[in-house]
Amino acid sequence: MNPLPEGNWTPGASGSPDAPRVVIVGAGFGGLAVARNLFGAPMSVLLIDANNFHTFQPLLYQVATAGLESDAISQPVRAIVRRGRRSGNARVRMGRVEAVDLAAKTVELDDGAVVGYDTLVIAAGAVAHHFDVEGVVDHTLTLKHLEDALAIRARILDLFERAAADPSAISDGALDIVVCGGGSTGVELAGALRELYSKVLVKDFPELPVADARIVLVDQADRLLAAFSPQSARRAKRTLERRGVEVRLGVGVASVHADRVELSDGTVIPAGTTIWTTGVKAEPLADTLGTPTGSGGRLVVEADLSVPGHPDVFAIGDIALMLGPKGVPLPQVARPAMQAGKHVARQIIRRLEGHPTKRFRFHDRGQMATIGRHDAVTELPGGLRFGGPTGWLAWLGLHLVYLVGFRNRLNVFLNWTWNYLTYDRGSRILRERERRGRGDLSQTGSMRS
Amino acid sequence: MNPLPEGNWTPGASGSPDAPRVVIVGAGFGGLAVARNLFGAPMSVLLIDANNFHTFQPLLYQVATAGLESDAISQPVRAIVRRGRRSGNARVRMGRVEAVDLAAKTVELDDGAVVGYDTLVIAAGAVAHHFDVEGVVDHTLTLKHLEDALAIRARILDLFERAAADPSAISDGALDIVVCGGGSTGVELAGALRELYSKVLVKDFPELPVADARIVLVDQADRLLAAFSPQSARRAKRTLERRGVEVRLGVGVASVHADRVELSDGTVIPAGTTIWTTGVKAEPLADTLGTPTGSGGRLVVEADLSVPGHPDVFAIGDIALMLGPKGVPLPQVARPAMQAGKHVARQIIRRLEGHPTKRFRFHDRGQMATIGRHDAVTELPGGLRFGGPTGWLAWLGLHLVYLVGFRNRLNVFLNWTWNYLTYDRGSRILRERERRGRGDLSQTGSMRS
Repeated sequence: MNPLPEGNWTPGASGSPDAPRVVIVGAGFGGLAVARNLFGAPMSVLLIDANNFHTFQPLLYQVATAGLESDAISQPVRAIVRRGRRSGNARVRMGRVEAVDLAAKTVELDDGAVVGYDTLVIAAGAVAHHFDVEGVVDHTLTLKHLEDALAIRARILDLFERAAADPSAISDGALDIVVCGGGSTGVELAGALRELYSKVLVKDFPELPVADARIVLVDQADRLLAAFSPQSARRAKRTLERRGVEVRLGVGVASVHADRVELSDGTVIPAGTTIWTTGVKAEPLADTLGTPTGSGGRLVVEADLSVPGHPDVFAIGDIALMLGPKGVPLPQVARPAMQAGKHVARQIIRRLEGHPTKRFRFHDRGQMATIGRHDAVTELPGGLRFGGPTGWLAWLGLHLVYLVGFRNRLNVFLNWTWNYLTYDRGSRILRERERRGRGDLSQTGSMRS
Repeated sequence: MNPLPEGNWTPGASGSPDAPRVVIVGAGFGGLAVARNLFGAPMSVLLIDANNFHTFQPLLYQVATAGLESDAISQPVRAIVRRGRRSGNARVRMGRVEAVDLAAKTVELDDGAVVGYDTLVIAAGAVAHHFDVEGVVDHTLTLKHLEDALAIRARILDLFERAAADPSAISDGALDIVVCGGGSTGVELAGALRELYSKVLVKDFPELPVADARIVLVDQADRLLAAFSPQSARRAKRTLERRGVEVRLGVGVASVHADRVELSDGTVIPAGTTIWTTGVKAEPLADTLGTPTGSGGRLVVEADLSVPGHPDVFAIGDIALMLGPKGVPLPQVARPAMQAGKHVARQIIRRLEGHPTKRFRFHDRGQMATIGRHDAVTELPGGLRFGGPTGWLAWLGLHLVYLVGFRNRLNVFLNWTWNYLTYDRGSRILRERERRGRGDLSQTGSMRS
């Protein structure tokens, strides 16, 4: 009745009771890289993540602005593992790891389960950093997880529908958005929001003054994109401004309220929506180890990426303070996490074979940020920079290559082609359970999920 | 700063204060057909729907079984209207219509707004019919709206993840599913669930006894697909059984519990999930008119589809008791609703021009239901029937043609091609807010949204 199809999994192989147990916490870029490089090794690998899917975080801003549907940048972790060659030694567990007990060599999950390990890799990532600014927790949205992106999308669509239902109730700035933080997330998001407003919402909502709505990008530094060269930063600012984003530099955020943002120079910007992208800090899990932490609460690690005093515990990616060649912390983006994951997998095998571990060396292959249609800034090692359409095409290509899963790549490619040709954004579905209670339109903001 | 792009909308044209006001309640197949056939007419059209999107309901079962993502079968109502030719006289309003006041000629929305009309079209659809069977409301899922489909998908994925976390806690039948109702929804859903289990979940969860899980289809009639010929019904039963669905006919459901279904003959089927597809009844809005209702609470309508005594009010689609050539109620599927919508739009124009209305004549063009990979039953008028791969290809083609929006067609086509070639289901993303509280696995069921 139930014929079992041929598959590449081997029941039982993962459960060999004598194999050393490697537990990986987090199925982001880092954790997945560790798992993939341990497929087929003589050990039992358990990959734990709070979600049943991997999120391609660099494209979150496109989900937030209705350019891609959530499934296009998410891939089931079980599918990724199952499709891996020789992945019969790996298992998947959905659950949030809430604490690490280094003495007992266990991790504790939110459902009460306690899982023992011989080797542990902590790759649990980061959360938004609020920097204790007044009102940020209550009145801003962030953009770090898939739910955040969907919350931003739902927020904007719901706000517009409610404003259309009663245009007279729109208060000053209700449709305006302030994006706090001029890093690549803020730059990419502000550019994409401007396109969403100018190309799509202005047509969807002819009854609303969409053309007058402001998208404001604020950063306390005197330039955008601190990780990029000054030339790229100037280019990004010029492009954003030409497209209608207001860029305010050299001024901090004093407080955020439901209907406005107050800047450190006293300026008040009325805004129905405020998005906070000023930075990240380590997942709170980092605090449970009791080992040293540094900037942003990140776990201090040795040169081989192990946790000090615990050669059997490694920390990689956004949760770790991984240092670059000159002792400068590596940027908290995908590439260092992926390289670190591969490195750690190799060290785990070396340790099993009785060899000493090696130090991690990050190979910088450049960085890029898109600023919207036809423009991006791309910087390669050695000072090579290019922007404009060439940078934009390079950005498109590279993100397609790194997107996990052939089906997702195809899906994203087709969505981009469609959006490019039609100036459309297809994913404008507002789900019932994503809507906030119908309140007073003059009291917007405050939709933390 | 904010250049306005060229668009096909004409601000102000929709708001001509003297134009007769046509209000359409519901943006399903019927309501959309009315709106489209009134684009450019000398009247002001307002299309109201509880959601900001149109749902292609015939493919809901594919979303429920992770074959398609939700965005693929949903289209923003504003985008549909905006893209219509000469649609400048139409506006969109998101809101749930809770009551119709025929005397005052107004409809009342859930946000308190009251909207006046000169002509009203009620196309608000249907909801699941529980037939007062014990336990159905508390312990079954239904499949009528997008949220229902996503709830089924989340339910199954969550159940499997929790079972995988602790296989020892799985009670008897926890992974089994009972589908109540052998109409086309039940048949299509049962077939697709069997494929999801046998082709995907069995590989994703090697630690669980997925191959032993049962999918049971129950109907109190002694055959499946009452709307089809006995031959098609037999074919559907044979195909489903060959693929591993247990089909139980001629026995009713006595009660549904969290962990089992009790049949009228005393049989108890342990099942962690029960899905109720036995039929629909009219949206509760139908009760607020005070005009006659018939079978399933549907609004009785005149031959021209107007509501008795109210020539300026029409009711179409699932909420109306539309009669076919021999006085038999038309099936509650897309085709009659679409034809009725077009008919009503024409009658509204005729009335405006001072002509009498005409009676509605339904043109039967056949019906089809898919039973899974390579098989479907298709029946054309005049007794022409075909099944197997030919019927399946016809089903695929027809649904692609009728799917709203070119982008969605392309998206669905590619997903189907992918799923067909790989036996995969891509949309296995379990969102955090869709998960139920972590309870006892022996107490499953009960996840009404």
